[in-house]
Amino acid sequence: MNYRIDNLQYCKWSREVFQINREAGLDAVHVTLVYHEDYDEFLIRTNEWKKHFSENSDLIFLGKNYKDIEKAKNENKTAIFFGFQNCSPIEDDINLFEKVYEHGCRFMQLTYNNQSLLATGCYEKNDSGVTNFGKEAIKEMNKLGIVIDMSHSAEKSTFDAIDISQKPIAITHANPSFWHSALRNKSNALLKVLGDSGGMLGLSLYAHHLKDSSNCKLENFCEMAAKTCEIMGVKNVGIGSDLCLNQPNSVVEWMRNGTWAKKKNYGEGSKSKPGFPKQPDWFVDARGFKNLEIGLKKVGFSQEEVNGILGDNWFNFYKGIN
Amino acid sequence: MNYRIDNLQYCKWSREVFQINREAGLDAVHVTLVYHEDYDEFLIRTNEWKKHFSENSDLIFLGKNYKDIEKAKNENKTAIFFGFQNCSPIEDDINLFEKVYEHGCRFMQLTYNNQSLLATGCYEKNDSGVTNFGKEAIKEMNKLGIVIDMSHSAEKSTFDAIDISQKPIAITHANPSFWHSALRNKSNALLKVLGDSGGMLGLSLYAHHLKDSSNCKLENFCEMAAKTCEIMGVKNVGIGSDLCLNQPNSVVEWMRNGTWAKKKNYGEGSKSKPGFPKQPDWFVDARGFKNLEIGLKKVGFSQEEVNGILGDNWFNFYKGIN
Repeated sequence: MNYRIDNLQYCKWSREVFQINREAGLDAVHVTLVYHEDYDEFLIRTNEWKKHFSENSDLIFLGKNYKDIEKAKNENKTAIFFGFQNCSPIEDDINLFEKVYEHGCRFMQLTYNNQSLLATGCYEKNDSGVTNFGKEAIKEMNKLGIVIDMSHSAEKSTFDAIDISQKPIAITHANPSFWHSALRNKSNALLKVLGDSGGMLGLSLYAHHLKDSSNCKLENFCEMAAKTCEIMGVKNVGIGSDLCLNQPNSVVEWMRNGTWAKKKNYGEGSKSKPGFPKQPDWFVDARGFKNLEIGLKKVGFSQEEVNGILGDNWFNFYKGIN
Repeated sequence: MNYRIDNLQYCKWSREVFQINREAGLDAVHVTLVYHEDYDEFLIRTNEWKKHFSENSDLIFLGKNYKDIEKAKNENKTAIFFGFQNCSPIEDDINLFEKVYEHGCRFMQLTYNNQSLLATGCYEKNDSGVTNFGKEAIKEMNKLGIVIDMSHSAEKSTFDAIDISQKPIAITHANPSFWHSALRNKSNALLKVLGDSGGMLGLSLYAHHLKDSSNCKLENFCEMAAKTCEIMGVKNVGIGSDLCLNQPNSVVEWMRNGTWAKKKNYGEGSKSKPGFPKQPDWFVDARGFKNLEIGLKKVGFSQEEVNGILGDNWFNFYKGIN
């Protein structure tokens, strides 16, 4: 195998972005469909994607399971897998999981920074773990084949999710906090349990998750990848770049604020740096996968291990979803 | 003053019920409009009430503030105050507080048994307290004049709400747990802090909140009221009967289950007793206020104190809402 998978992007989608992902050789991308949208707004997003699929059928198609990644590779296309960064389209209705699954949803975060009906986000002061509704939700997601994604969740909630879920879960886009301390990054203890349970971490290339932010060095990133693999196993680490290509700053403001406060929240940014941060120059877009390949080899990974991190590990994880 | 106020009812509303409440001499009733409804469904509930008001204008009208309680007394009518037992009509939008206020909402529970976006319910295993969104919500409710009601909330969340709110909060319908241990009843420590902060407890007449359930004795209930007044002050206790007159058992099933689980939850009931419990024979409906008056005097309350508990305390509390 030699798949290339980016397991988290939220770009301003266009033919240009799909072409870049093809140039990068990506066989699959897990794309974020919704943050704060409710069920009806989610349906609007799926309609927007129907248009993307029909206008760019030479580049992309909707992925339903791992076989579509094989198909994409054979056809020189990118399989697009739908995911949610919050559970808001589920509203308060367990029956909507089946509906969103039918529309293609394969990954869902139980929370986005704040408390949700299912679990606690990493920006809350206290973390009560997976809720009553959350336990029912996990059961339903396991049954359908929607991956539990805890990228933006608080720690106890994540431990709970690993424990409750009958299938391995994912943290699609985050880094270890030993390398760069941030509310969004994860502790060694959590990463170890995640790895031991067959779960995956997608390393993030988003500057706020990187040591030295936009000035992060490729070598340093790859050294971090090596240490992370020591903690959680070389087969449990992949990439979830968190690329937000061409998105205006109004989008990151909306991500952080939704409609839950009248005052403005800066999230990982600050009043002086409210917008999207600059990407490091070796990962401006997914074509940076080539640099990662070079960098990972340089820090001692074998070609097979590099292939694992850049896609094959995610491919194997996808095999277990259904 | 000599007001009679029942600060929580969720009956199957009909002219018959409004007549019973008039016979009971109720000047005001806080009625539950919604449990699990979203904003659009809340609007449907308000339209149903418009019909009730127009068809029963000789008995009831929509109350907006304490002056409507005075008006109701003068006109021999009952002022109806709208409240929510969950925050679900707010969805995830801080701006909807203003909208529901405009439609008459004056009380809102931050949670109903389970975790909400604002706080933790009393049926959750862990209680993380008032959330980020919850803090913003309390600010907004204080500003508008919507009372924070923590009847179905967990303890830490309730302490948090008392602490964060700039105005006294209410537990509109619950009893002390020293008298009858139940997830819905409240600890002495909490009641003391509630009283000290100017908050109100509405004593519940719902069998699951009563010692000896449907067989609870009037005298025993009134002795409990006396002890509760010792803990939290005689001016901080009222009645919130939780009467659900004429509701079919399907309604209590819906209250407990909403749409958050595929399995059935029995809440305060059990598999063998899934429906609404029988009312004690001295409080079959609001006309039981007369029995309460007799019973409270018998355990040593003065007429003024009895008037306080049966309505004047709530009246004074309403004065502070806006």
